Amino acid sequence: MESASVPTDEALRQSAGEVARLLLERKLMLVTAESCTGGFIAKVLTDLPGSSAWFDAGVVTYSYEAKEALLGVNPRTLERTGAVSEETVLEMVSGALARFGAGAAVAVTGIAGPGGGTEGKPVGTVWIGWKRRGGYAHARVFHFDGDRDAIRRQTVAAALEGVQKALAQ
Amino acid sequence: MESASVPTDEALRQSAGEVARLLLERKLMLVTAESCTGGFIAKVLTDLPGSSAWFDAGVVTYSYEAKEALLGVNPRTLERTGAVSEETVLEMVSGALARFGAGAAVAVTGIAGPGGGTEGKPVGTVWIGWKRRGGYAHARVFHFDGDRDAIRRQTVAAALEGVQKALAQ
Repeated sequence: MESASVPTDEALRQSAGEVARLLLERKLMLVTAESCTGGFIAKVLTDLPGSSAWFDAGVVTYSYEAKEALLGVNPRTLERTGAVSEETVLEMVSGALARFGAGAAVAVTGIAGPGGGTEGKPVGTVWIGWKRRGGYAHARVFHFDGDRDAIRRQTVAAALEGVQKALAQ
Repeated sequence: MESASVPTDEALRQSAGEVARLLLERKLMLVTAESCTGGFIAKVLTDLPGSSAWFDAGVVTYSYEAKEALLGVNPRTLERTGAVSEETVLEMVSGALARFGAGAAVAVTGIAGPGGGTEGKPVGTVWIGWKRRGGYAHARVFHFDGDRDAIRRQTVAAALEGVQKALAQ
């Protein structure tokens, strides 16, 4: 389990500000593809004035159909591995980058609870993927503690931190 | 100007809860198409546990290109009327409903500031559109006061209130 405390609004805002700074510096646009965070990442980023200079678009794909239609996720991947898997998040982040003109993408899919957990994938299981144009997609699994809001906040923080790392390279 | 006070997190949550209740009662799924709120509406809705039962998908279309690619907004409409107009929001809400299997859609486009305002469309100008499958799209313009967060919060509240009205019919 991640032992990090639950990020406050101010902590998320600071992290989003750092993402903005890096995107502006590198003249890149970002796209977001969210499942369990349901627009929270896009919301935190676009809280910042002037975000249209570096935020291109975001999608919130809650249903299988939305993941297929908006991101081109293969229905067989969803059938075989479920929506919360390394394969699905890699297809989400690659699909997001392929469909938009942006230079970087982040995707998340997980189980924010309180329902939806299983023995193999308990509540708090979250896959996050990142990709820069011309680079490889990579993904990481997280196991967050807490209630729905706590899990979503930790997911947003981890997603933004990963974007910073991807942009710093 | 709207004289309503700025809605709190709790007020937004309550309004989202009422939207959820109506969607469940009518067995309808909702899609959101957001520009100036940048995912805030989707975030507030998916804060609720069990939202996958009635929330299908959302898009955050910040750029012209995203509005065209994700919602099928006509480039000539954007060129002629700009992104913040009755025509654009009607095309956004109709496009959202046409592209997803949902039964109801809400779309918003506006100027949350602090930049981007003009004499004809000052900061706080927001168009919101609603549509139910098989019904007519309708739209309304709002003129909100306050800073970026206040304008976005009032937009989320007005959007959710309009969804309630559209579902109550």
